[in-house]
Amino acid sequence: MSKFATTSRRGVLRAGLAAGALLPAASLSARAQGGPDPLITQVQDWARYTGAGVDETPYGLPIRFESGVIRRNVPWLTADPISSINFTPIHALDGTITPAGCAFERHHSGAIELAKPDYRLMINGLVDSPLVFTYADLERFPRHSGVYFCECAANSGMEWAGAQLNGSQFTHGMIHNMEYVGVPLKTLLAEAGIRPEGKWLYVEGADASSNGRSIPLEKALDDCMVAFKANGEALRMEHGYPARLVVPGWEGNLWIKWLRRIEVTSGPVESREETSKYTDTLDNGISRKWTWVMDAKSVITAPSPQVPVRHGKGPLVITGLAWSGRGAITRVDVSTDGGRNWRTARLAAPGQRMAVTRFWLDYHWDGEEMLLQSRAMDETGYVQPTKDALRQIRGENSVYHNNGIQTWWVRKDGSAENVEIS
Amino acid sequence: MSKFATTSRRGVLRAGLAAGALLPAASLSARAQGGPDPLITQVQDWARYTGAGVDETPYGLPIRFESGVIRRNVPWLTADPISSINFTPIHALDGTITPAGCAFERHHSGAIELAKPDYRLMINGLVDSPLVFTYADLERFPRHSGVYFCECAANSGMEWAGAQLNGSQFTHGMIHNMEYVGVPLKTLLAEAGIRPEGKWLYVEGADASSNGRSIPLEKALDDCMVAFKANGEALRMEHGYPARLVVPGWEGNLWIKWLRRIEVTSGPVESREETSKYTDTLDNGISRKWTWVMDAKSVITAPSPQVPVRHGKGPLVITGLAWSGRGAITRVDVSTDGGRNWRTARLAAPGQRMAVTRFWLDYHWDGEEMLLQSRAMDETGYVQPTKDALRQIRGENSVYHNNGIQTWWVRKDGSAENVEIS
Repeated sequence: MSKFATTSRRGVLRAGLAAGALLPAASLSARAQGGPDPLITQVQDWARYTGAGVDETPYGLPIRFESGVIRRNVPWLTADPISSINFTPIHALDGTITPAGCAFERHHSGAIELAKPDYRLMINGLVDSPLVFTYADLERFPRHSGVYFCECAANSGMEWAGAQLNGSQFTHGMIHNMEYVGVPLKTLLAEAGIRPEGKWLYVEGADASSNGRSIPLEKALDDCMVAFKANGEALRMEHGYPARLVVPGWEGNLWIKWLRRIEVTSGPVESREETSKYTDTLDNGISRKWTWVMDAKSVITAPSPQVPVRHGKGPLVITGLAWSGRGAITRVDVSTDGGRNWRTARLAAPGQRMAVTRFWLDYHWDGEEMLLQSRAMDETGYVQPTKDALRQIRGENSVYHNNGIQTWWVRKDGSAENVEIS
Repeated sequence: MSKFATTSRRGVLRAGLAAGALLPAASLSARAQGGPDPLITQVQDWARYTGAGVDETPYGLPIRFESGVIRRNVPWLTADPISSINFTPIHALDGTITPAGCAFERHHSGAIELAKPDYRLMINGLVDSPLVFTYADLERFPRHSGVYFCECAANSGMEWAGAQLNGSQFTHGMIHNMEYVGVPLKTLLAEAGIRPEGKWLYVEGADASSNGRSIPLEKALDDCMVAFKANGEALRMEHGYPARLVVPGWEGNLWIKWLRRIEVTSGPVESREETSKYTDTLDNGISRKWTWVMDAKSVITAPSPQVPVRHGKGPLVITGLAWSGRGAITRVDVSTDGGRNWRTARLAAPGQRMAVTRFWLDYHWDGEEMLLQSRAMDETGYVQPTKDALRQIRGENSVYHNNGIQTWWVRKDGSAENVEIS
């Protein structure tokens, strides 16, 4: 058994389950037989009385029955007395848009309240004209929109050490996908005029941590955006209101919230967030640095530990998310026997560059144990690797960029558990 | 002056304003000159202290500074002691996704609380096997997703009588655009098996009003869906939790909330909601009935009465929404002189069928009065008509399907008002 098999908190199963049959979803419905179902045959209370009025919720929240679909945190995960990261409840969602209210947040010194009149954005350094923009200024430039995923580089980080956290929300929930509107960064940089010796940017936020990062100019001029809308409305406080940087496909840490300053530099700054943090040390002692691009990745969100199969055998929808920082997802395969056999899942829509893709597999469950896995492929031909393959290359000391294949062990009773296959 | 000019609450202006110049957005920024701006040069409080923690909002709401971006109602608009419709704050949004929390709602007997375990969906009538589905059943069928606009047929209804309501939220806010996930209706109908004599559906909801409507089978088998997710999460209570009908491109009233029953029939039922309501009487006394498809329409959301131009002349982003129930929006033109001259606006993304399209015009405002208009075109070649052209055909007694061109009179001080041009 590998080291990881023995350290995993959960049991390790050898992949040896028979492949289940793939049949069309059939005969799900309760046919009208035997006694009538009063919930459909009897007039219910909600059909007798007037319900809630339109003025009761000028800005609404989900219905109380969905109160479990929330951000959750893992208190011991960060060094702070209170956690500084939470997780999107991806196990309970479908489609691709992440509602802002439960979209994960991560910060290094808390989420700040920064009003639009107080907001300023400076561009300085190797520019012809240093500039300071107000928020109102930003709204006057030509806009751009795009749907992009934002993934923390530490997403699935705990899972380097084995199958640790029991739920897709916790193993993979440092991700959200939203429609952003803002000003292309190149537009603002063109206002300032970049000097020929300018090759990098140093970007920082207005919060106490500032979260300064270096970004190569080529990326900045490509598809980066200073965004002020997400999913139609203003950014949430915890997502960087009133303006944040959007760096499509790249580490979430680069997406500076409460964006305050952009300095054009001749070289990288080598800030704390790109040396002490956001680097991974390999077995040979050399560290991977500036691992900007989020590699292709996928996860089955249901069934999963928080979403057991309650209906027994028969038609079962296996679903999940896939994404790649290198472009569009082209295909997702699903295995029910721990990676021995693969089926190609349905994509809800053609893959969009740097955005989350939803996949479904319409499966006929025979009620036997399953080892569920998904494997994503992107437009570059890259295939999501196994965790073991990653460890072979990266060693055992990584914190970030764990995009390995995730396995859920589904028992006969429908409950699911996070496991690793050796 | 036409009748409508005299009855309009606002002044009517003859289109006579000179066309403004279209220049690239330039020189917006406050160049670093004179005294330093302390908001960027001084360390602010929010940079000194720890902000809010991640566990403070398991499900978040917008920041308090955005408390004006809410659904609003017009108390006198409906006959009820309390209003039964509210309006999306489209004036304050950008992009295309409408946040569920401020997406308009309309109902005939209030929004009901219907828990998933209590939910039942019956399919009966001219079918081989009458069926009753639980909510859990629905989640086992193969899913589909799509981004669709939902517009109330009465959207802009008050404006038949002239320029009545002063704000795009009120003139055009009975619309939202969301990503839905659910089961194609044809899948569920195939389970029941449609008899050859079945040509229509009668659909109704579980609320007291039931809101029964007839839908031709061809549409039902095309792209209709029983949806249980909107923008990633469960439907909101007020949007029909846990399941509603989605009828892409067709009147919002058909999108039955708290969907309870689908009866396959040989002919239409001629329910109240398709005879007494949702019909329009022409001048000759004949009524238009079953005006299912929402015609191509657009509106400039900003500048508009609720969003005056505060920054004076120079670069100005004119933005709005366009949509069509017949397919994709292909083009939106914008006029600043009341329809004498038109410029083609930028579409944020290529038009998607039966979904909202965002457009922008990057304009250089000379500070003079403007009469802003937008005009949408869809893939069928249909062009959004003027209100006068509509009235000529429909007469003066319409309630529904006002998709006429909207005009905002923008004064030199940047304030805007709803007007009509004769």
